[in-house]
Amino acid sequence: MDFSPASDFASRLDARDPLAGYRSRFAIPDPDLVYLDGNSLGRLTLAAAERLRQAVEDQWGRELIRGYNQDWWQAPGRIGEKIAPLIGAAPGQVIASDTVSINLFKLAAAALELRPGRTKIITDTLNFPSDLYILQGLVRLLSRSQGEGRGGQHAILRIGSRDGDVTPDLDALAAALDAQTALVTLSHVTFKSGYLYDMAAITELAHRSGALVIWDLSHAVGAVTIELDTCNADFAVGCTYKYLNGGPGAPAFLYVREALQEQVVSPIWGWWGQQKPFAFGLDYVPAPGVTRFLSGSQPIMSLLAMETALAPLLEAGMPALRTKSLMLSEYLISLADTLLAPLGFSLGSPRDPARRGSHVSLRHPEGYRINRALIEELNLIPDFREPDNLRLGLTPLYTSFSEVWEGIDRIRRAVEEKRYEKYSPDKLTVT
Amino acid sequence: MDFSPASDFASRLDARDPLAGYRSRFAIPDPDLVYLDGNSLGRLTLAAAERLRQAVEDQWGRELIRGYNQDWWQAPGRIGEKIAPLIGAAPGQVIASDTVSINLFKLAAAALELRPGRTKIITDTLNFPSDLYILQGLVRLLSRSQGEGRGGQHAILRIGSRDGDVTPDLDALAAALDAQTALVTLSHVTFKSGYLYDMAAITELAHRSGALVIWDLSHAVGAVTIELDTCNADFAVGCTYKYLNGGPGAPAFLYVREALQEQVVSPIWGWWGQQKPFAFGLDYVPAPGVTRFLSGSQPIMSLLAMETALAPLLEAGMPALRTKSLMLSEYLISLADTLLAPLGFSLGSPRDPARRGSHVSLRHPEGYRINRALIEELNLIPDFREPDNLRLGLTPLYTSFSEVWEGIDRIRRAVEEKRYEKYSPDKLTVT
Repeated sequence: MDFSPASDFASRLDARDPLAGYRSRFAIPDPDLVYLDGNSLGRLTLAAAERLRQAVEDQWGRELIRGYNQDWWQAPGRIGEKIAPLIGAAPGQVIASDTVSINLFKLAAAALELRPGRTKIITDTLNFPSDLYILQGLVRLLSRSQGEGRGGQHAILRIGSRDGDVTPDLDALAAALDAQTALVTLSHVTFKSGYLYDMAAITELAHRSGALVIWDLSHAVGAVTIELDTCNADFAVGCTYKYLNGGPGAPAFLYVREALQEQVVSPIWGWWGQQKPFAFGLDYVPAPGVTRFLSGSQPIMSLLAMETALAPLLEAGMPALRTKSLMLSEYLISLADTLLAPLGFSLGSPRDPARRGSHVSLRHPEGYRINRALIEELNLIPDFREPDNLRLGLTPLYTSFSEVWEGIDRIRRAVEEKRYEKYSPDKLTVT
Repeated sequence: MDFSPASDFASRLDARDPLAGYRSRFAIPDPDLVYLDGNSLGRLTLAAAERLRQAVEDQWGRELIRGYNQDWWQAPGRIGEKIAPLIGAAPGQVIASDTVSINLFKLAAAALELRPGRTKIITDTLNFPSDLYILQGLVRLLSRSQGEGRGGQHAILRIGSRDGDVTPDLDALAAALDAQTALVTLSHVTFKSGYLYDMAAITELAHRSGALVIWDLSHAVGAVTIELDTCNADFAVGCTYKYLNGGPGAPAFLYVREALQEQVVSPIWGWWGQQKPFAFGLDYVPAPGVTRFLSGSQPIMSLLAMETALAPLLEAGMPALRTKSLMLSEYLISLADTLLAPLGFSLGSPRDPARRGSHVSLRHPEGYRINRALIEELNLIPDFREPDNLRLGLTPLYTSFSEVWEGIDRIRRAVEEKRYEKYSPDKLTVT
């Protein structure tokens, strides 16, 4: 155990945890640190550190440009195939590239083209704001050349929440879907409350209206079971630096359902998505399949580290990861109910495990200052999200039950000992 | 000297080279390798390798998400300011982000919006094809919502060459500029022949017609003198993995002239380009200045390695780098005239040093197979570009005159000894 004295109960849960051994695959230079922010940046695997060292010294340093003939050029497609089993995708539908924002831009533009004449885009207020910004920018761009009064301009409808941004208003979502709806795009797990959408039900509902669906899997992949193919999802994007442990800003991924691939056109062309990139022809011809959504040269060092980090997830398998994730969050919520609710905390995440991702938000009026105190004084890293969410990420590969116990105990101390009071309420940090 | 027996003349040039000492800042695991492909992928600096090790182990591994509060979040802007002096830009106009293709897409969309009603985009057949693809995709996207017969659709005009893709047809370029021209976009140094555009003259010519200019500096930055501000350039993009030695696929950069910054809108919004990213507001408000051209999370590991690699360039300074670059290419051309012209090679680059970048193309009907033989048998890495260009990149920080001499001698041997004949003319490699 890294943490002592842990509760006997937590110790027993750790002793029976079939994934407990995976913690040794990660760099843990400070065993006292309670790290509950793997949902922002996953820990470093020892294998990724070694892979990066090797890629730098042996490939970039020694092989130089020949690295592209080794395993660089094919990296986006090869890594896409490794991510595929984590998101329920058969081969040939996933590539790793660019950022979530860029990939969402590409897929949203492609999706809207598949639904000409339909002008409504549905999303929700629980979605990650950057996703909303991407949609807003795209709508503005598409409307530019239309001019006044020409009609056909897209509009974005944001479904709200009836319970303070914890769960979406599903009735409003269902009511909004109509024959004008081109696209529905949502975060599979919402970034603030960790609400987990029923992908199969929502996708079917959207399809019934003839709309396409893009799922943002950033807060879901590696932590919850995702079945894109089974759900008939059309498109998906996701990041790799959270539960996939790919490293800060590691390249994102995108998924295009096979049946749609030959119908769709990326708005951002480029030689990595060209049919014959080294013929250097002057006119773009899209590569077959999902590869057409590549554009420019990808950051190889960041890609290779991310690829290596996928191995333990693939070994553990999503069913075991999801099972442990739920045990961790159930345990955390039970501790919070007992120890933190009396101190003014309320649950900012769904209580129903079937509707919950792998992070839990605890709300407190002093959330921001408590977060500061935890980081500065109690060696606990959560993160804070406006207006009052202390967000606690649970990563089944390396978060232990003892760590959860210790984390809740430190939060209790931060409040009971009024440690937060010395911190300014002015927002400073970027985490 | 790494190479022996080098010619006495080359040795004397090396002995008097004020930049000779910079070679020791790079990893040179194989001193016999003649590496003339720094214009595709620059060599690894020892400092970048160490920075990456430190960023992986000490930051990602130990500090985890706190790395963003150290030096990650500010990296795109901070690194932009370091690139600025290499491209003649005053502070506040450059950011590092995404890829050249993505950045060109953003800037081209922004530029076209500044010239409503103008429908012509001028580029040339010497431009890097991916840049052409970006323009083609953007024009298609912008025309989508216009529908048939609505007019106003953009058209791309590609200026040709009168000498087999070595130099552009400047008369045709001048004649094409008119009151319908919204945008001119060119590679400052062309990827195949290494032709160096007169940035000041072309920019002024374009401005006289009321057009905006985007320069792609990918094959120029770090190798030729660039004066964006002095030339009144409007926009620029460039990559960092060639002469800037940033590493494979390291993030690109973009420049927006200060006077334009508050007028332009990126088509790809995102939280890194939002005014208050951590307020998580639901509506996009652009950040001030050039920062608004950021969108999603950037690959931090690749960014930091690239940042570190800039140091020796900044120390050496562009005037010294350009002087050595020209000495290297003059020397190479004189050797090629003497030793390789009799074997069927012709110069595929401008003979005028004022119009030449830092790579030299030598054309030969068996160019592809000679390239293969050089790589496989003679420990020389050039690269090949269709249809017959053996492309030789000269990197002033680490290419020595002896290396140039040795390189030309090995090319001579590859042809004289008919080593290329055993290789298939079928294109295999990606380099």
